[in-house]
Amino acid sequence: MNEENLSVCEKLVSVSYMRQGVQARRSHELLIRTLLQQGKCPEEGWSASTIELFLNELAVMDSNNFLGNCGVGEREGRVASDLVARRHYRLIHGIGRSGDIAAVQPKAAGSSLLNKITNSVVLDVLRFSGVRSVSSCFVVPMATGMSLTLCFLTLRHRRPSARYILWPRIDQKSCFKSMVTAGFEPVVIENILEGDELRTDLEAVERKIEELGAENVLCVHSTTSCFAPRVPDRLEELAVMCAKYSIPHIVNNAYGVQSSKCMHLIQQGARVGRIDAFVQSLDKNFMVPVGGAIIAGFDEEFIKEISKMYPGRASASPSLDVLITLLSLGASGYKKLLAERKELYTHLAQELKTLADRHGERLLHTPHNPISLAMSLDGLQANCDKAVTQLGSMLFTRQVSGARVVPLGAEQTVSGHRFRGFMSHSDVYPCPYLNAASAVGITKKDVALSIKRLDKCLKGLKKDTKGEKCESVSSPSSPDDQTVP
Amino acid sequence: MNEENLSVCEKLVSVSYMRQGVQARRSHELLIRTLLQQGKCPEEGWSASTIELFLNELAVMDSNNFLGNCGVGEREGRVASDLVARRHYRLIHGIGRSGDIAAVQPKAAGSSLLNKITNSVVLDVLRFSGVRSVSSCFVVPMATGMSLTLCFLTLRHRRPSARYILWPRIDQKSCFKSMVTAGFEPVVIENILEGDELRTDLEAVERKIEELGAENVLCVHSTTSCFAPRVPDRLEELAVMCAKYSIPHIVNNAYGVQSSKCMHLIQQGARVGRIDAFVQSLDKNFMVPVGGAIIAGFDEEFIKEISKMYPGRASASPSLDVLITLLSLGASGYKKLLAERKELYTHLAQELKTLADRHGERLLHTPHNPISLAMSLDGLQANCDKAVTQLGSMLFTRQVSGARVVPLGAEQTVSGHRFRGFMSHSDVYPCPYLNAASAVGITKKDVALSIKRLDKCLKGLKKDTKGEKCESVSSPSSPDDQTVP
Amino acid sequence: MNEENLSVCEKLVSVSYMRQGVQARRSHELLIRTLLQQGKCPEEGWSASTIELFLNELAVMDSNNFLGNCGVGEREGRVASDLVARRHYRLIHGIGRSGDIAAVQPKAAGSSLLNKITNSVVLDVLRFSGVRSVSSCFVVPMATGMSLTLCFLTLRHRRPSARYILWPRIDQKSCFKSMVTAGFEPVVIENILEGDELRTDLEAVERKIEELGAENVLCVHSTTSCFAPRVPDRLEELAVMCAKYSIPHIVNNAYGVQSSKCMHLIQQGARVGRIDAFVQSLDKNFMVPVGGAIIAGFDEEFIKEISKMYPGRASASPSLDVLITLLSLGASGYKKLLAERKELYTHLAQELKTLADRHGERLLHTPHNPISLAMSLDGLQANCDKAVTQLGSMLFTRQVSGARVVPLGAEQTVSGHRFRGFMSHSDVYPCPYLNAASAVGITKKDVALSIKRLDKCLKGLKKDTKGEKCESVSSPSSPDDQTVP
Amino acid sequence: MNEENLSVCEKLVSVSYMRQGVQARRSHELLIRTLLQQGKCPEEGWSASTIELFLNELAVMDSNNFLGNCGVGEREGRVASDLVARRHYRLIHGIGRSGDIAAVQPKAAGSSLLNKITNSVVLDVLRFSGVRSVSSCFVVPMATGMSLTLCFLTLRHRRPSARYILWPRIDQKSCFKSMVTAGFEPVVIENILEGDELRTDLEAVERKIEELGAENVLCVHSTTSCFAPRVPDRLEELAVMCAKYSIPHIVNNAYGVQSSKCMHLIQQGARVGRIDAFVQSLDKNFMVPVGGAIIAGFDEEFIKEISKMYPGRASASPSLDVLITLLSLGASGYKKLLAERKELYTHLAQELKTLADRHGERLLHTPHNPISLAMSLDGLQANCDKAVTQLGSMLFTRQVSGARVVPLGAEQTVSGHRFRGFMSHSDVYPCPYLNAASAVGITKKDVALSIKRLDKCLKGLKKDTKGEKCESVSSPSSPDDQTVP
Repeated sequence: MNEENLSVCEKLVSVSYMRQGVQARRSHELLIRTLLQQGKCPEEGWSASTIELFLNELAVMDSNNFLGNCGVGEREGRVASDLVARRHYRLIHGIGRSGDIAAVQPKAAGSSLLNKITNSVVLDVLRFSGVRSVSSCFVVPMATGMSLTLCFLTLRHRRPSARYILWPRIDQKSCFKSMVTAGFEPVVIENILEGDELRTDLEAVERKIEELGAENVLCVHSTTSCFAPRVPDRLEELAVMCAKYSIPHIVNNAYGVQSSKCMHLIQQGARVGRIDAFVQSLDKNFMVPVGGAIIAGFDEEFIKEISKMYPGRASASPSLDVLITLLSLGASGYKKLLAERKELYTHLAQELKTLADRHGERLLHTPHNPISLAMSLDGLQANCDKAVTQLGSMLFTRQVSGARVVPLGAEQTVSGHRFRGFMSHSDVYPCPYLNAASAVGITKKDVALSIKRLDKCLKGLKKDTKGEKCESVSSPSSPDDQTVP
Repeated sequence: MNEENLSVCEKLVSVSYMRQGVQARRSHELLIRTLLQQGKCPEEGWSASTIELFLNELAVMDSNNFLGNCGVGEREGRVASDLVARRHYRLIHGIGRSGDIAAVQPKAAGSSLLNKITNSVVLDVLRFSGVRSVSSCFVVPMATGMSLTLCFLTLRHRRPSARYILWPRIDQKSCFKSMVTAGFEPVVIENILEGDELRTDLEAVERKIEELGAENVLCVHSTTSCFAPRVPDRLEELAVMCAKYSIPHIVNNAYGVQSSKCMHLIQQGARVGRIDAFVQSLDKNFMVPVGGAIIAGFDEEFIKEISKMYPGRASASPSLDVLITLLSLGASGYKKLLAERKELYTHLAQELKTLADRHGERLLHTPHNPISLAMSLDGLQANCDKAVTQLGSMLFTRQVSGARVVPLGAEQTVSGHRFRGFMSHSDVYPCPYLNAASAVGITKKDVALSIKRLDKCLKGLKKDTKGEKCESVSSPSSPDDQTVP
Repeated sequence: MNEENLSVCEKLVSVSYMRQGVQARRSHELLIRTLLQQGKCPEEGWSASTIELFLNELAVMDSNNFLGNCGVGEREGRVASDLVARRHYRLIHGIGRSGDIAAVQPKAAGSSLLNKITNSVVLDVLRFSGVRSVSSCFVVPMATGMSLTLCFLTLRHRRPSARYILWPRIDQKSCFKSMVTAGFEPVVIENILEGDELRTDLEAVERKIEELGAENVLCVHSTTSCFAPRVPDRLEELAVMCAKYSIPHIVNNAYGVQSSKCMHLIQQGARVGRIDAFVQSLDKNFMVPVGGAIIAGFDEEFIKEISKMYPGRASASPSLDVLITLLSLGASGYKKLLAERKELYTHLAQELKTLADRHGERLLHTPHNPISLAMSLDGLQANCDKAVTQLGSMLFTRQVSGARVVPLGAEQTVSGHRFRGFMSHSDVYPCPYLNAASAVGITKKDVALSIKRLDKCLKGLKKDTKGEKCESVSSPSSPDDQTVP
Repeated sequence: MNEENLSVCEKLVSVSYMRQGVQARRSHELLIRTLLQQGKCPEEGWSASTIELFLNELAVMDSNNFLGNCGVGEREGRVASDLVARRHYRLIHGIGRSGDIAAVQPKAAGSSLLNKITNSVVLDVLRFSGVRSVSSCFVVPMATGMSLTLCFLTLRHRRPSARYILWPRIDQKSCFKSMVTAGFEPVVIENILEGDELRTDLEAVERKIEELGAENVLCVHSTTSCFAPRVPDRLEELAVMCAKYSIPHIVNNAYGVQSSKCMHLIQQGARVGRIDAFVQSLDKNFMVPVGGAIIAGFDEEFIKEISKMYPGRASASPSLDVLITLLSLGASGYKKLLAERKELYTHLAQELKTLADRHGERLLHTPHNPISLAMSLDGLQANCDKAVTQLGSMLFTRQVSGARVVPLGAEQTVSGHRFRGFMSHSDVYPCPYLNAASAVGITKKDVALSIKRLDKCLKGLKKDTKGEKCESVSSPSSPDDQTVP
């Protein structure tokens, strides 16, 4: 309420009560001002009431909410359904303009502010999560894979003759497709087995660069977060190599923001070598609905170039989700979630180890993977070939979600490329296994319940599959269903 | 409530009242069943209460809402903010899978149903809006321009050696960028002036095909909905030409669903010639927030191929918006909106004509454009060069949104290509003009207010700009701001 | 957003866009200021967005939403459930104080404003609906009946020795109980049959006053809105009589605000005689959920005295509902609803007449009742005694709600008083009948459907009940169920 | 979704996913069934998603949500504003009927269920909170005071000649007014000072009974929860006395549900003597918005009699709030809140004691009061007479809400009765003091902040009021403002 309205109110209720009311309003406004001025994630989370006040303030500045507006354009932010208008807080115009997804819209000052502030707050989070020198980023309402595609498409204009993307293998369809969709030829670099871990074969990468010619390589496309026993790529060394050969370097950091290790790798890579952009999922790192990604980098110009590649206006929905979420958590709340995740990683590892011991299996030793764990299923498979697959389907039925079972020898053709040992990031990984991850938002109860149900399934399977009773199983979910994140 | 719960209720309140309550519930369920079985937009709109009942039913089938679920994956549909969860009706998992944006997710039966049903309902709407033989479509949470890019990227795999896209000129940045982003070279075909109208130069297109070689042409990229005095492309003839030369044909139907003429053009084009896909905006045709498009076509296989190109899961938000909107409008409600739009187009034309007459200007004669109109600004410009631009900024300030002013001789470089006479779809259009459109959702009040304010502005400008008083103007929005939709 | 925050925003998005955003905000604030200053129902309805902006502004001024508040009282407006907080727009403190339901709360400036403004807006509506000289009113979160009780309890303190309330009979339980609950003895004045109408027996009232002694009569308790064939009491004459004998006069105007006739009666009564208070239902007049009433009168002191009788704070929920509703309708919207109601009254009467003719029945001639109509059921009853009751239950099952069937000779004991011919407002009304009302919010479809179904039921019953087939019926709803509003 | 709809869905997405979705739905339904069957507060809280599912199920059973309903009554549950409909989950019909607030409505099976279930769940909570033998209760949408009035009005019919209510003094206006409003003469029994505590003067009560004659006493009106240094009445002894003299006994248990001590007193009183009804606030015990109370007792018939006294239908809003809250907390959640409250009581006492010591004041020794504490302000007053009042206003300004300052010698006339030493429950309490309470929902932060601010205020006041600087203060809130809960 503005000053004039307040003074009217003072005639209706006592001056002193109104004065206190006004003071109270100011404390909300002060929070908002700090946000606007600093562009940082507030240290303490905001109440829902401050958040909604802020969003309403933004909404009234968009032309579709002007009381006196008349529209004779072809895009006026009209909304037919009130249910729809409300769920978007009446912010209808989306973000960006046809020329640039980060641009300001004349018709929508509020939505434009939303967009700017979201990108700024997210940048702050990337910084305090470990990539301290990141200089620019923007939220894009597309999947991580499609966002990688946009990066590759942008690079094409810089390197028009390059055809190849070097890609240390990671068995997730969308990673592979992101390159194919962009029209490039992925060059798969098989991983090296070190102990239980699958790690980047740096020599193979360098060999390929020289074989293909640096100028023909669009970029190196590396990965941080991944399922064990694969571990994050050797980013520092790759970044140095990219610098040496003047090859761009795009990092798929899908769910890596939640891990200080992944973020540290990116920070270090950029410091000692070359990283052009790194891309992360909104939903996997910030507990929002599926649908957005952050494209970030160290060279503001390049990031801006990417943002200018998106033709058209885009949905503000993912930006709105992540902004609401970060304002409500605050930096301290988000850090707390990350700390809990880390703690539960250790807890999950211990529990899985105990379980593995009990069933004659082994928790694979993958210290470089800070999120995902793997437990061997050797014994289970020895009993019965189909038992491994059956375990996957049993877990699905028992509402253990995300526990991914990887049998030996699966083959799959993705966009014309045939992968042996698909899902295991390796043509021939030594044993079948089961993955479990400690991802942001996981609770102690998740761990307890999944271990308990897994234990029960393993016991049941052992009984069922002893000797010739090894039956045929029709998994409700194909292996593929359990695979791709 | 299931049968058992209802029989418990009968003990609490009278049997006959409960029986009536149950009967009432059935009438909602019957609506839902009809939707599920027929996959069509219901004839009569649903009440908000049926819609929310339905969405809640979907949500409980997603694993993030399972009461007994435990998650140890990296993507579990966890939501940190309740505000966010609620605005998405707790449908968190997005749509599609890494392999295919139209695919079913094991973890999210409800979201998967939402996706299927939305695509099915939207297909029905495309059909009854005029493209009766469309066979397949899907909603994608990307701008029209980015969706066109995805179509072009898909075609690349079918025509790996093609480099050019033939494009009858339309001055909207995102259309041009959609081709550049995909990595192709747009070949601009200038329009022909017929009377006041700018129309497709069919001979020039054919000449270019022969000049470049059909095999080097990725596709023809034509446009239906556009600002007057440009009119929809000659789709039939282009489609026949594409068939003749075996060149794919992609149609930008941005806001064409709302016009039976645009839809008829597509229907006819596909009947007599070749149209591979046509792309339309969700927000411009269905009064939902910015952020989604529909990719549709006549060959199910090709549309499926496009949907498989999107790497990763995608936001369900645009699908949810359009589903809620269409269920609440019903087919009859949507048709009524279209009929009103058509009527108001005639009304707007009359009003503009009267206004033009009064001010010594002319309503340009553009009968082939069913949505957009243009009024000359010759007289205004004669007075003072800057007056045309000033008019744009005056209208902006007076909250007349969407009224686009096109001065003579603007030049703009978009992605390296220099456009003369930018915004007018022509190197040298004979006169400056002002655009106004009758788009879906427009009201009589919009027309009345904008005409009134326009009148006032024109009067004011005439007075101000008589003789030497023609002053310098700093428009708050550059011409460009008023240009691109 | 305050000035400082806006100037920060200008650095983020263009100054001119922000300026427009600010201007847009001002137009909302201007609406709010007008409301605060004039305390009247705005002529044009507000958008949901203005309403919610206003409610949010109010909420931030309540101590439970102070960011820095700390509470060590026993009532701090804490809310355990976010669902609950949200549905009340975080206005938790209710209205009034222990001393006075209209008083201002120190802890809750926002809720206090809500209360004041609601009462003020409602007063305006009472005025323009016909009681131009009403001077004071307040919303109370109690049923009409309980509100009448509160009036009677207040009068007790003015007339400590009075025991009787004179009450022209109206067969609605809560009216009768309102007196009994207050501890008084209702003196039932039977109505006079004039033509088809049941009207106030003025002589009987005067006779009773003289018989009991004016000083022993607490008040006359009259009624406006009622089911036909009863018609509104002769308020003018009663008011004059009350003035003559110095007896207070309380009017039950339950759903009379919607009828200019009922309101006119009150206005006239107060002008020529004495009306101390009139009470009306919120839900029946303003299309809000059940639960509130308005106590209004012409002497501010007396109305204040009533408001001071309510011991304790009270729910703000009905006030909030009616405020939202009136702001969203605006005076013009509410008047439009009233005009439609009136029109549909005529339409309903015509339709019922045609139907009655077709079935050999008669639309009772009750021109003094502006809302409710009655159609005789003589013929139906002639066929079979039970048919009348059966009709009621058939209509219930066919979802015709509110069509009330009144058989002959029903008896009922309410709070110890035995009513003959209960539901018909008369010991011996000449015929059984069916009621239908044109109440605010009724639609043409309501009329059409109910006439159609009624027709069908009557046809069916005639066939079923011809001769000896007159079967036993177990109505799912007792006659009583259909009776009391 | 019913069976038929599910089988249609199976054709759209995989059978196994749907099966899991159905299983998930069942787990919600199972929770609902348990609630319906047992009528108890669920042990574990429900998710918001289950709660809303349940409320939606109820809503579809009300006639205003019937898709085929047509209404020709005067009360059809029509809602003009969608904002209003939504905030009530489309449950519009309120609770009860004109004859009985606990009765079932034919038009509203869903609302009727809501009412029944709420009363049942609340009864369960009263039981497990300590009044194990309570047999019946109902929620009424009125303040505690008005609910007490309703109890007194009901008793009038049982004891028509009784005029007096015996009332051990408690200085809260609404308690006193509840009797006056009902039309009775409160007989104030002054408390006895025992140590620091003010306790029931049992002898005085008995003396008054004999003096007035038991048959002339409507009831004894005792109190549990109250501000220290008054402590809960000696309920056991009063109950025995009431039994002995056959006088009804109504207990004001305003915020006593949260304290096992208060509840124990009631349980014991009913066991050894007579308690006819006890009344408690919804907002103060269950953290819901102001506006409702629970009337409970040990004789089902009497409680039913009270519920039948309410004339008319009533707001369902308080019932809805408390049901949502209790379902979301679960019994375990509510018990946890109670345990925390108890713990923080001890903590607050310690903190206040330390503070008092520091400032030369004393924490009054009031072990019988389980919620409220009092700290003497002797020293402060010694400095300056006005300092005590000033402290109150300073705390108000510093957003310490609920800290109530009680000066010596205040006088107040309430409904004609003059109270000396008002606010202190005693004509002459020995010292001024400050109250603080540990009420349900209080947090450690509340305690810390209020102690800190109180400390600062006391320090400041000492400095300011030393010697002649004792200035005049105009408190923004009169003493009264801080007094009455």
